[in-house]
Amino acid sequence: MSKEITSREKDYSQWYNDLIIKGGLADYTAVRGCMVIKPYGFALWENMRDVLDKMFKDTGHQNAYFPLFVPKSLFEAEEKNAEGFAKECAVVTHYRLKTDPNNKGKLIVDPEAKLEEELVVRPTSEAIIWSTYKGWIQSYRDLPILINQWANVVRWEMRTRLFLRTAEFLWQEGHTAHATKKEAVEEAERMLEVYADFAENYMAMPVIRGLKSPNERFAGAEETYCIEALMQDGKALQAGTSHFLGQNFAKAFDVKFSDKENKLEYVWATSWGVSTRLIGALVMAHSDDDGLILPPKIAPLQVVIVPIFKGDEQKAMIDNKVNAIVSELKDLGIRVKYDDNENTRPGWKFAQYEMQGVPVRIAIGARDLENNVAEVARRDTKVKTTVDINGISFYVKELLDEIQLHIYNKAKQYTEDHITLANTWEEFIDLLDNKTGFISAHWDGTPETEEKIKELTKATIRCIPLNNPLEDGKCILTGNPSTQRVLFARAY
Amino acid sequence: MSKEITSREKDYSQWYNDLIIKGGLADYTAVRGCMVIKPYGFALWENMRDVLDKMFKDTGHQNAYFPLFVPKSLFEAEEKNAEGFAKECAVVTHYRLKTDPNNKGKLIVDPEAKLEEELVVRPTSEAIIWSTYKGWIQSYRDLPILINQWANVVRWEMRTRLFLRTAEFLWQEGHTAHATKKEAVEEAERMLEVYADFAENYMAMPVIRGLKSPNERFAGAEETYCIEALMQDGKALQAGTSHFLGQNFAKAFDVKFSDKENKLEYVWATSWGVSTRLIGALVMAHSDDDGLILPPKIAPLQVVIVPIFKGDEQKAMIDNKVNAIVSELKDLGIRVKYDDNENTRPGWKFAQYEMQGVPVRIAIGARDLENNVAEVARRDTKVKTTVDINGISFYVKELLDEIQLHIYNKAKQYTEDHITLANTWEEFIDLLDNKTGFISAHWDGTPETEEKIKELTKATIRCIPLNNPLEDGKCILTGNPSTQRVLFARAY
Repeated sequence: MSKEITSREKDYSQWYNDLIIKGGLADYTAVRGCMVIKPYGFALWENMRDVLDKMFKDTGHQNAYFPLFVPKSLFEAEEKNAEGFAKECAVVTHYRLKTDPNNKGKLIVDPEAKLEEELVVRPTSEAIIWSTYKGWIQSYRDLPILINQWANVVRWEMRTRLFLRTAEFLWQEGHTAHATKKEAVEEAERMLEVYADFAENYMAMPVIRGLKSPNERFAGAEETYCIEALMQDGKALQAGTSHFLGQNFAKAFDVKFSDKENKLEYVWATSWGVSTRLIGALVMAHSDDDGLILPPKIAPLQVVIVPIFKGDEQKAMIDNKVNAIVSELKDLGIRVKYDDNENTRPGWKFAQYEMQGVPVRIAIGARDLENNVAEVARRDTKVKTTVDINGISFYVKELLDEIQLHIYNKAKQYTEDHITLANTWEEFIDLLDNKTGFISAHWDGTPETEEKIKELTKATIRCIPLNNPLEDGKCILTGNPSTQRVLFARAY
Repeated sequence: MSKEITSREKDYSQWYNDLIIKGGLADYTAVRGCMVIKPYGFALWENMRDVLDKMFKDTGHQNAYFPLFVPKSLFEAEEKNAEGFAKECAVVTHYRLKTDPNNKGKLIVDPEAKLEEELVVRPTSEAIIWSTYKGWIQSYRDLPILINQWANVVRWEMRTRLFLRTAEFLWQEGHTAHATKKEAVEEAERMLEVYADFAENYMAMPVIRGLKSPNERFAGAEETYCIEALMQDGKALQAGTSHFLGQNFAKAFDVKFSDKENKLEYVWATSWGVSTRLIGALVMAHSDDDGLILPPKIAPLQVVIVPIFKGDEQKAMIDNKVNAIVSELKDLGIRVKYDDNENTRPGWKFAQYEMQGVPVRIAIGARDLENNVAEVARRDTKVKTTVDINGISFYVKELLDEIQLHIYNKAKQYTEDHITLANTWEEFIDLLDNKTGFISAHWDGTPETEEKIKELTKATIRCIPLNNPLEDGKCILTGNPSTQRVLFARAY
């Protein structure tokens, strides 16, 4: 089974697709650019969603649900936002089909059912939400509003890739309203920290926290905070963004509140989101040529137990022992499966669970029973250990923590090894092409230079790290004076 | 606050809207026919969803996610299904907007970005899912497939009502594939029972389990099972459906499997769904003229505690006591809030939580503290009891169970009192107009008669109850022979 996976060295991009499809995470569909998230992939997303949802609630947010459709006149109200998304909008123009008079059994769009105003399928929900907040906010007593929604959004992409870039994707989007600028900025920063915490402590994926340059900001934002992660091919991936929106949407939708002095002021806003794209990041951050490597904290299945036996008698003895282990593991809150399917052989199962990235595999044979031991194999390092069955559940629980930490440390080391200083254009090009990763270099701070560098190298400014030290220097491209280094990379 | 609610007697429909909007469950939006589900309403939906999701998983189902869009050629493949939904489809025809050359700052649909094939926004997902299953099913070993998805769907309704009938709504849809007809029928029946269990034991809403007549069947189904509930105005509401789809979709999408004898057979299918419409049913089944009455098992908030005090010293003493109670209640898994907001007065809070249907309210004043008691008020009967603070958490826990049961029994009694036999057309009309509720009457079994009765009375056959006793009789309208009574009602 694992033989079928293309190696990273041979074709990184095919390796990624193999993992997604053969690992059972997702698949293509008959709809251009849209995927189906299969049960195993969706279970992974559910685990990620549940952790994030709790983090949002613990920071005072509530969930709500706003409409899928945005009337064009609302969509265009915040001009920069509209301009940013106009080119990738799916547009509903009609509300009825009818029988094709020339073609029995076929349907055509009913020209008489044309909408007076077209509806945009939300690419993001600031417009529809702020048009609704207008009715909810009169006084400072109505603030803050701290709302999140889990939803599908559509951005018409010409070149799509499973999880990383699909026409429809699932995400959460927080939309908050505040009485002061200070509060809104604090909120945007707080949610960036929530994302970073989630990425590092659950996905085991180290991230750089930073600010986007103006060119890379969210359309309609005053400031975009981001977390950036490094994939195994040395390309960066934007894993989450949190926007300080200033009063832009309040002004576009005329949302004012009377403050404690009874003065009318525009409301301050933030929005922040992460999406199913994170699954793509997760896959590329940790996996190897034999398949997925999933961090235990969010793996759909943490432990699989495979029996090795001949005949019913051995099977019954193993069953007996395994049932006890399963129930011990479940009592410890561990997600475990006993795979005693007799249609497939142990070797096939081993390869299958390896491909699917199940963190721990336990194999038990008749000989093991005699010695009251089992073989415990960890997916990340492939190390196998013979473990006494008494106490095996505690052993496994600790092992899961160790795997979580080991995966993180490995990725952390890789990331640290791939943040490299470049002081000349030649160095910069050489690093981009040969070493890859983040390149820390001086930039003169102008959008034109950033654009030019992108044109020449396909590298973009991934972020200006938070708490970036100031340092006098010369722009890598123009030689103009610069006050700080920023992180460049080629990116997904 | 509660004064603002229109009474049921005065205007039932306005009463319903008042509860939804003033209770903070949902609100209208700028998008025709689409609502926003507000945090309180969404918390209710989350509780319902979590219970259902566990029930689905406990019966062997997994979640997945399929595309929002259905290409027209797939949509029309199963002809009856297509015909059934064609008239209410939102259709995406373009994938881009552009700047209006004649109107600065405005956008128009880019005529050059017309899709080659129109995309239907899913009104239900059989077509897209069965076109995907085709790639997943080859052999009997690939069956059964037991998948559910939580999703938004769009059905373009001309007359909408919050929760009951909106253009976009949230639901779950199960889609299963089986090797035999028997298995598929069993699945459809199993899921109907899951829905009935949920409605009765969590929503405290008694339901009739039955089969739809051919006229009322889901478009594309061989048999539609349903649960029907009775609202306080005597109208019925379809609360959930489970469809045995036969091989209709397998034939439309050419989904065959090789059975154990290596013979190719079409796959058997079911689908089943419940939606946010259940929230409308919940509201109408239990609430009164002072506001919502929510069953404790799914209420977002089960207990609210309101302090009554003068001055900081009293407040501090109450806080101290309440904090202990809150932590006791939380330890018992009870959702509790201590509302010590000083901007609103106790009387206002009482009315507010009454309107929002919080099952139990605890009020504690300074005098109560002296006696170590608190006032416990239940929302359903409005009975208030003075309770010793020692052990109050256990008292409340039992009270919540009692309220759950009481709400159910009340609705059960109402439903039983409103199933009435009619033996003549005059009786039938009189019951419909004056007593309302379900009317059990003979029907000659023809679609024409059913249609005619609907035309004359607006009543439809809600269902043929499961295990309906056979009984010779004469059709209420035509006098033709009939073998069983069926349940008629006017319905939502």
